[in-house]
Amino acid sequence: MSSNHTHRVPIQMGERSYDIVIGASLLGDPSTFARLPKASTAMIVTNTVVAPLYAKHLADALAGQYQRVLQVILPDGEAYKDWQTLNLIFDALLQNGCDRKTVLFALGGGVVGDMTGFAAASYMRGVPFVQVPTTLLSQVDSSVGGKTAINHPIGKNMIGAFYQPALVVTDIATLATLPRRELSAGLAEVIKHGVMADWAYFEWLEANLDKLLQGDTSAMAYAIRVSCEIKARVVSADEREGASGIRATLNLGHTFGHAIEAGLGFGVWLHGEAVACGMVMAAKLSQSLGYVDAAFVERVTKLLVRAGLPVVGPASIPPEEYLHHMSVDKKADGGQIKFVVIDKPGHAKVQTAPNDLVVAAIN
Amino acid sequence: MSSNHTHRVPIQMGERSYDIVIGASLLGDPSTFARLPKASTAMIVTNTVVAPLYAKHLADALAGQYQRVLQVILPDGEAYKDWQTLNLIFDALLQNGCDRKTVLFALGGGVVGDMTGFAAASYMRGVPFVQVPTTLLSQVDSSVGGKTAINHPIGKNMIGAFYQPALVVTDIATLATLPRRELSAGLAEVIKHGVMADWAYFEWLEANLDKLLQGDTSAMAYAIRVSCEIKARVVSADEREGASGIRATLNLGHTFGHAIEAGLGFGVWLHGEAVACGMVMAAKLSQSLGYVDAAFVERVTKLLVRAGLPVVGPASIPPEEYLHHMSVDKKADGGQIKFVVIDKPGHAKVQTAPNDLVVAAIN
Repeated sequence: MSSNHTHRVPIQMGERSYDIVIGASLLGDPSTFARLPKASTAMIVTNTVVAPLYAKHLADALAGQYQRVLQVILPDGEAYKDWQTLNLIFDALLQNGCDRKTVLFALGGGVVGDMTGFAAASYMRGVPFVQVPTTLLSQVDSSVGGKTAINHPIGKNMIGAFYQPALVVTDIATLATLPRRELSAGLAEVIKHGVMADWAYFEWLEANLDKLLQGDTSAMAYAIRVSCEIKARVVSADEREGASGIRATLNLGHTFGHAIEAGLGFGVWLHGEAVACGMVMAAKLSQSLGYVDAAFVERVTKLLVRAGLPVVGPASIPPEEYLHHMSVDKKADGGQIKFVVIDKPGHAKVQTAPNDLVVAAIN
Repeated sequence: MSSNHTHRVPIQMGERSYDIVIGASLLGDPSTFARLPKASTAMIVTNTVVAPLYAKHLADALAGQYQRVLQVILPDGEAYKDWQTLNLIFDALLQNGCDRKTVLFALGGGVVGDMTGFAAASYMRGVPFVQVPTTLLSQVDSSVGGKTAINHPIGKNMIGAFYQPALVVTDIATLATLPRRELSAGLAEVIKHGVMADWAYFEWLEANLDKLLQGDTSAMAYAIRVSCEIKARVVSADEREGASGIRATLNLGHTFGHAIEAGLGFGVWLHGEAVACGMVMAAKLSQSLGYVDAAFVERVTKLLVRAGLPVVGPASIPPEEYLHHMSVDKKADGGQIKFVVIDKPGHAKVQTAPNDLVVAAIN
C-alpha cells in the first residue's frame, strides 16, 4: 500500500472506527490486509460476475494470513438479495465449522456488500467483515456507513442491521472492468455529494468529469476519497438515521428516484439513474420553494447529462403515480412525505412540500 | 406498579441501558409501560400456548398508549425457532405498514423472546422491543443480556444479534400457569447463579426452596431479582462474550448439558434439566481438580434433587459420546474443550481439563 495514489480515510465511530483505503491494485496486495484481527479462516463472498475477475487475486493475497480461504459465490443481481441466498453464506460457514473469529470479505457491488454485511452481523451474533467494493456506486456509497440488509417480498432493505466493517478496501483498478452504464450510475451519487454537501467539490467535478469518464486513476482516487469523506462525515454525525435528520440528506433525489424505480419495476433503470433524474426533480422543487435559481438547476442537470445520466422521468409514469409510490414509502415513516431539498448550493435539508410544487417538479 | 412486591433492576449498558421490573400482575397494568418511547403501533409476538392465557391482558394494557395493538401468534416450541417462523413476524410488520418506531412485545418463554428480539434487531435495521417473559427460565436467564437468535439446521442459535430490549417486564403471576417441570427447569438456572456467583444466595435458596416450589410470591420475587442482578452484573462486564471470559462463566453446566441434549436429541430433556445434571458433573470435575470438596458437591446435588431436577446423566449416553459432542462444540471456539469449573463455592472460572477427569465426572 505504498503507492502514491493510496489514501486512507478514517471513519470515526468510537470502538467501531475503521479505515477506508483507496488506491490502485490493492486487493491483490497482502499488505492491504495486514492489520486485520488474527483469525484462522477467511471467507470471500462474491458473485458469478465478479468471481472470475478478482476472486483469485484476493484469495492469493489472503493466503499468507489465513490457514483457510473459503469462497461462496452467489448468483448476481438484486433479485437474489433475499433470505434464501443469504442462507448460502450461513450454510457455507457452518458446513466448514467457521468460528466467531472468521473474517468475511465482501467482494463485489452493493448487493454483495449488503448481504455479506448482514451475514457478518448475524453469524454467531457478529463476526468481522471487510468490504472490497468493485463498483463505483458501492465504493462511494453503500460500502460507507454500515447499512446492511436483504429485501423482503413486500419491501426493499427491510431486514438488516447497522454493522460497521473492520476495513473497506477500495481498489480503483476494478473500475476498469465496470460497464460504462454502471460507471455513470456511480457518478450520480458522486455528483449528489457535491450538490448536497460541498459546492467546491461540485465545481471540481464540472472541471474533471471527462477525466473520470476516461478512467483517470488520479482523478478517480480523488473523487472517491472526497465522496467517502462527505458520506463519512454525515454518517459519523448520525449513524442510525436519528432524529437530527442529518443522515437523511444523503437521500437527495431518492424520494423521486424510488418512485421511478417502483413505477418502472426495480431494475429497469439502475438505482443511480433514478437518483440522477430524482435529483433534477429535487433541484426544481428547491427552485420553486425559492431556495435556488434556474441557473443552479441548469448546472446540476448539465453535469448529470455529461455523465451519461437521465434527467427526465419516464413518460410512462404520470405524476399521480409518483405521489402514490411516495405515499406508500411515507407510511414507513409515519408521517407526511418528506423531501431532501437544496437550500443553497452545496447544502441540503429535509422538509415537506405542497403537492402542486411536487407535481410541477416532476413534469 | 405500586405493589410492595415490585422491584426494578437497572441494567447499566450506557446508551443501551434498561430496567427489569419484577412483580405480580404487571403485564395487565397500563402503568407498567408508561415510560416506553412514543409510537403509534405495538405488536405482540406470542405463541399458541401463551396467547390464550395472557395476550388479551397485555393488549388491553397497551391499548391506551398505542393506536394499534397488533398480534402475531407463532407455533410453540424450539422446532419453530427458524427463519420461516421468524418471517411470519416480518410479514405481519410489513403487511401492516409498521414503521421503525413500532414496538415489539415478546410475550412468552425463551423461544418467543429470542425470535422477537432478533426480529426487532433486524426489522428496518432495528426497532424497540420489550421482553415479557412468562416462564421462570426466561425470567432469570434468556430475557437478560440481549442475546437473540434463531437456529440453523446445522446449529442452535447460530444466526442472531446482541440486541438489548427497552424494558423487561417480569410478571410473577404468569408462573401460576407454568407446568411444574418447567418451573424446575427454571430453578436449575437460579441455583446455578448461586453456585457460580453468590454462595450466600445459594444458602438462601437452600432455606427457601420449598417456598419457591409452592409459588410464594415474595420468595419468588426475591429469587428472580437476585438472579437477574447476578446475570446483569456479569453481562454488563462482558456484553459480547469477549476475551475476558467473564460472561462464559454463566455457562456453568452447559458444556456437559449440551452434550446430554445433543445425545438424547434436543427437546427430550428440557434445557434446565440438562444444565442441572451438567452442573453436578462440573461440580465433580471441580472436586477432582482440587477446588472444592465432596461436601460441596453433595450440597449442590441435594438442592437440585429437591428442586425436582435430574442429577445423573442418561444411561444411554456413554462418556465417549459426551466427548464427541463437546469436541464438535469446541470447533466453534477454535481451541480445546473449555469447562466452567467452581474454584470456590460461589465463584467460577473457565479452563481446560484432562479427559480422564472429565470422564470420571460423567460416570
